[in-house]
Amino acid sequence: MAQTKDILEKALPSGRVFFDFSEWHDYTRDAAEIIHVPEALFFAESEADVIFAVRVCREHDIPVIFRGAGTGYTGGAVAVEGGLMLSVERMKEIHIDADAKSAIVGPGAITGDILDKAAEHGLFYPPDPASYRESTIGGNLAENAGGLRCKKYGVTKDYIISARGVNADGNFVEVDNMSPFGLCDVLIGSEGTLFAFTEITLRLIDLPRPGKTILATFDDSVKAARVVADIMATGIIPSIMEFMDGDAIACTNEFDSANKIQDCEALLLIETDGVHGNDEAVRIEEICNRHAPALLRLTTDKAESERLWLTRRNLSNAVKSSAAVKTAEDVCVPPSRLPELVEFVKELHDTLGIRVNCYGHAGDGNLHVNFLLSEDTEAGRAIAERGVSELFDRTLALNGTLTGEHGIGITKKEFLRWEFDEDTLRFMMRLKRSLDTGGVFNPGKIFSE
Amino acid sequence: MAQTKDILEKALPSGRVFFDFSEWHDYTRDAAEIIHVPEALFFAESEADVIFAVRVCREHDIPVIFRGAGTGYTGGAVAVEGGLMLSVERMKEIHIDADAKSAIVGPGAITGDILDKAAEHGLFYPPDPASYRESTIGGNLAENAGGLRCKKYGVTKDYIISARGVNADGNFVEVDNMSPFGLCDVLIGSEGTLFAFTEITLRLIDLPRPGKTILATFDDSVKAARVVADIMATGIIPSIMEFMDGDAIACTNEFDSANKIQDCEALLLIETDGVHGNDEAVRIEEICNRHAPALLRLTTDKAESERLWLTRRNLSNAVKSSAAVKTAEDVCVPPSRLPELVEFVKELHDTLGIRVNCYGHAGDGNLHVNFLLSEDTEAGRAIAERGVSELFDRTLALNGTLTGEHGIGITKKEFLRWEFDEDTLRFMMRLKRSLDTGGVFNPGKIFSE
Repeated sequence: MAQTKDILEKALPSGRVFFDFSEWHDYTRDAAEIIHVPEALFFAESEADVIFAVRVCREHDIPVIFRGAGTGYTGGAVAVEGGLMLSVERMKEIHIDADAKSAIVGPGAITGDILDKAAEHGLFYPPDPASYRESTIGGNLAENAGGLRCKKYGVTKDYIISARGVNADGNFVEVDNMSPFGLCDVLIGSEGTLFAFTEITLRLIDLPRPGKTILATFDDSVKAARVVADIMATGIIPSIMEFMDGDAIACTNEFDSANKIQDCEALLLIETDGVHGNDEAVRIEEICNRHAPALLRLTTDKAESERLWLTRRNLSNAVKSSAAVKTAEDVCVPPSRLPELVEFVKELHDTLGIRVNCYGHAGDGNLHVNFLLSEDTEAGRAIAERGVSELFDRTLALNGTLTGEHGIGITKKEFLRWEFDEDTLRFMMRLKRSLDTGGVFNPGKIFSE
Repeated sequence: MAQTKDILEKALPSGRVFFDFSEWHDYTRDAAEIIHVPEALFFAESEADVIFAVRVCREHDIPVIFRGAGTGYTGGAVAVEGGLMLSVERMKEIHIDADAKSAIVGPGAITGDILDKAAEHGLFYPPDPASYRESTIGGNLAENAGGLRCKKYGVTKDYIISARGVNADGNFVEVDNMSPFGLCDVLIGSEGTLFAFTEITLRLIDLPRPGKTILATFDDSVKAARVVADIMATGIIPSIMEFMDGDAIACTNEFDSANKIQDCEALLLIETDGVHGNDEAVRIEEICNRHAPALLRLTTDKAESERLWLTRRNLSNAVKSSAAVKTAEDVCVPPSRLPELVEFVKELHDTLGIRVNCYGHAGDGNLHVNFLLSEDTEAGRAIAERGVSELFDRTLALNGTLTGEHGIGITKKEFLRWEFDEDTLRFMMRLKRSLDTGGVFNPGKIFSE
């Protein structure tokens, strides 16, 4: 440990390398709140910085963990084996090439800032994880982040034209979306275990014509889920369609009392856009009305809809702050089976004896299900664990999948053994070993040895 | 050579392994027409067959080339270093799971047959390379095939839920679209160099409501390209939008005189579908009319539109049969720049002194540009080569890309060095070597050593 400090202190530019984590608390965790203290923290300001730091670490077998904003949910940006936390936050240039409809960005650029700059040119970068106002594009690439709009517009991977970066030998590599073996796709979503992105060229699209924002509340969460199934059955894909159950709404109302939503058993927040945005809103309104909404409101007022979306984006924090322990799971079913899944979550809430709520990207049939304990007890954790296992069983019975919208990191490692046999896992690990022969890039993630 | 024959004759079931290629002529080439004679041909009928054959070849360092229908354009399924041609044609089971909206298929299933079977259940598999009535799904995976509908519906990769297969050690591997490192994406598009698919689970979608087929002809190819640019600027994405220039049409009229299209300078063949299909057809009709079409026809008649689409699907063969030598290139520009590219192709045709024509998936800004020689002369080849190089320069100047819709195989190998530097190529090759340590899977493809 002392040795690592000496090496890095000598090698890296002073003023940008730090060793005392009592002052850099945030860098010992991500949103999963599992704490591991790195040996050093370095703020890279250029590609040359990254190359240099990687070479030093490689030479001395020091783990390197790349870090954007640390908003991940699976411990992906946490130093489980010590080593150097390499922050790319300062590499945050954003250059919009309006003619080529692309953005050339540093890995530390905040995703929301990219959206804002693109909008100045009438352009749009669609992938918007809930944390997009804080999270960095480098982190989004590492996790292949989706977001509220991903059913209609796709995920991060779908918007990468090319990427520059540094491999685990400290060599510069540049890949694009035509690279053999989908190499670009291998690196995107590799959670910092294969590659350090230093510059990314994003594909932008024309800013879609704004449509309408639709708020519908219901006295029964299953009704709301039926509306979702009916909308998806028409073939209409809203740009966003978010579902929240009554308990999730109660959490946001506690969290942000200035911005209260009327109490209800379930809420749908839907946005349409593009050339058919207004027609689609009319059809969606009809479908909502067929299921007797408690409240139904269509708006084109930007301030009002921004306020509604903020509520959704804060949901994860709101739910977290409502409990001492939150176990969050992420499942997906065909949208036609969403009513059954929502009903099952309600049953869990009613029968488990702990608070269970859910919300999610309903158009995908995606549900974030939360098991909440008001205090941290062993008995409580056992109940939550049982709930998770029942949830997984039911999801699979409904032809669903146990999704990894948030990556694997450390919290989902066990899960991999469920899904893949030994030979297949070995095949994946071989890929990791071949591209990072020294094993210095983000060790201890994805695979259990 | 004799030794390879002895080994394979002894190891593989007789009646399904052959050595005399005068009787198996088709297996010495693909659509690129570059001839290499393998040492043996084996028809696998099961996953166990594939595992066994791969193990034998691996043990004796015999190359294995996996083959579907051999409709590829880049020599991907050709035995450049001899070895065993392993045909998966007989592994052609198709099982539709209507409830899960998926199809479980063998690698030798014909893509068009999958579409037909899915349609019986009201379901749809969108990726449709022009050759979909002959090509196999295994070949489509190996090349990550696109197709006429790929702008609206995506490519093969977007419809893979999971795949089973055999790696170069002869071990069974199963991956899905949640595998770490986009492993599924690595294998899809790896052109038989990393993996033999033995069973694929495809995602199906609801059969979109039929819209309209629109045929528009113009007295000027640039006008037609302007229509494309204007349609794309509205935000409408037709399910198909194909462009053909006058010379390409002349080729199809020579090729299939029973099915003649009226002579013209350019033609657009457009299809709309889905919930907004009819509205979109009306908008497209308006846009066509603004550019003074020679002919404009909207139809919902299935037989008529099938006939039109057949013309398009035969185009590649039609153009090929019109010349002694065809050099086909594949480029892409932003749709707004398509008029400039089409104008440039016209210029090439007028000034090069050889026949040059083009057609392609216009919504993507994609153009297949053909340089045709009526006889094979060195002078002619030199002119074609100059034309290709000018085409590439102009494409890049229009913010375009030199696409690889057809993979790299052997015909596009040189091309890789243009696009990637040494370190990046080494990084890609390392991936190949790590997953196929013996180098037996489809050697001599993608990379020049």
